Amino acid sequence: MGSATIFFWLQLPNVTKNYRTALTITGIVTLIATYHYIRIFNSWSEAFTVASKDGGDYTVQLTGAPFNDGYRYVDWLLTVPLLLIELILVMKLPQAETVSLSWKLGLASALMVALGYPGEIQEDLSVRWFWWCLSMIPFCYVVFTLAVGLAEATSKQPSPAAASLASAARYLTVLSWCTYPFVYMVKSVGLAGPAATMYEQVGYSLADVLAKAVFGALIWAIAAEKSAVEESGKLLPN
Amino acid sequence: MGSATIFFWLQLPNVTKNYRTALTITGIVTLIATYHYIRIFNSWSEAFTVASKDGGDYTVQLTGAPFNDGYRYVDWLLTVPLLLIELILVMKLPQAETVSLSWKLGLASALMVALGYPGEIQEDLSVRWFWWCLSMIPFCYVVFTLAVGLAEATSKQPSPAAASLASAARYLTVLSWCTYPFVYMVKSVGLAGPAATMYEQVGYSLADVLAKAVFGALIWAIAAEKSAVEESGKLLPN
Repeated sequence: MGSATIFFWLQLPNVTKNYRTALTITGIVTLIATYHYIRIFNSWSEAFTVASKDGGDYTVQLTGAPFNDGYRYVDWLLTVPLLLIELILVMKLPQAETVSLSWKLGLASALMVALGYPGEIQEDLSVRWFWWCLSMIPFCYVVFTLAVGLAEATSKQPSPAAASLASAARYLTVLSWCTYPFVYMVKSVGLAGPAATMYEQVGYSLADVLAKAVFGALIWAIAAEKSAVEESGKLLPN
Repeated sequence: MGSATIFFWLQLPNVTKNYRTALTITGIVTLIATYHYIRIFNSWSEAFTVASKDGGDYTVQLTGAPFNDGYRYVDWLLTVPLLLIELILVMKLPQAETVSLSWKLGLASALMVALGYPGEIQEDLSVRWFWWCLSMIPFCYVVFTLAVGLAEATSKQPSPAAASLASAARYLTVLSWCTYPFVYMVKSVGLAGPAATMYEQVGYSLADVLAKAVFGALIWAIAAEKSAVEESGKLLPN
C-alpha cells in the first residue's frame, strides 16, 4: 500500500493537469490504508503471543488485549468514498455530473460502511445478518450505479486503449466490491474461533489490495493513456 | 488530517501564485492537527487499559496516567488563527484589509482559546461557566465579523461557482465554530465520568475534522476555481 502511494505520486508530473487530482486521491487512499494496516498489525501482535516451551512446538495464546477490527472500518469510512471519487474524476465527466455523482456515491458508500460495523462486532448471528442486510442496500445502489454508469462512460473514452482500461476498471470494481459481503458472512454462517478470524482477516486484506492498490494502478493507467491522447493533439483538452 | 495536508500541498502547482500562500497555510493547519492528534491518541492509550480475563468480556480501567487534554488547546492556539488567515487570504481582499483583518481575527481567536483552557481543566461548574462566558466574547466577535465579512466578500467573487463556494465556506465556518462551545458545555451541565469525557472527545474531534480538513477542502476548491477563472483570462489577476 505504501509503495503504491509513492508510485502514484511520483507519476503526477507524467499526466496532464486534468488527471492530477484523481492520481493524488489514488495515493491518499493507499496512504490511509498503509496507516491503518500498521495499526492493525500492531493490534494483532499485541493480542496474541507465539512462543515455544523448551524449544518444542510453537503455540499461540491470547494476551488479553483485544484485536481491534475497528481500524478497518475507520479506514473504509475514509477510503471507500475517496476511491469512488478518484474513479469519477478520471472519467472526466461534465463538472455538474462529477459533483452530483461524487456526493451520491460518496455518501451512500460511507453509509454502507457505517451500517456494516454494528454487525461486525456482534457474536449474535441474527444481529449480524440484520446489519449485513441493511448495509447491502447502499452497497447494491453503489455497485449498480457504477456498473451502469461505467458502461456508458466506457463508450465515450477518447481511444480504444482508454476504453479497454475503463472496462477493466468496471469489472475490477464489481469483483473486488463483491468480495467484502462474502468475507463478512464467514462469521455469520456460524464459523467461529481463530480459524474464522484468520479467514476473515486474509479475505479483507486481499480484497483491500485489489480494491485500492490494483484498482489504483488501473486509474493511473487510464490517466496516463488519456494524457497521451490529449498531448498528441487527437483531442484538445476542454 | 495528514492526508488532507498532503492533498493540499500536492495541489500547490495547480493553483496560481495568488492562492499558494493560502493553500500552504491550509496544509500547515492540518499538519499541526496531525501532530497533536498523535499526541492525544498516545495520551489516551496510556490513560486506559482494555483487557479481558480468561477470554471473557473486555473491561476498561484507568492506569493512573493522566489523559492530557492540553494538547487540544495548544493545537487550537496555533491552528485557529492560521485557519482564519487562510480564509482571509483566499478571499483576495485589498492588501491593507488583509493585514488588518488577519491581526484582528488572529489575536481575538488566540485570546478565545486561551480563555477557554482554565475552565476546561476545572471540575467546579461555576468556574467552568465563568471562563466559558469570558471566552465567548472574542468568539462572538470573530463569528460575527466572519458572517458579515464573508457575506460581503461572497458578492465580489469572480464567478458564480466561486461565489457559491465562498457562501459554503461561510456556512461551514458558522456551523463548525458553534459546535465547540456546545461540546465544552457537556461537562458544565453536570455530566461527568467516562461517558462525558467520551462525548467531549468525539465532539471536539468531529468539529476539528469539519473546521480543518473539510473547511480546507473548500479553501482549495475556491483557490482552484479562482485560478481557473484567472487563467482563462476572464479576469486579470490584480
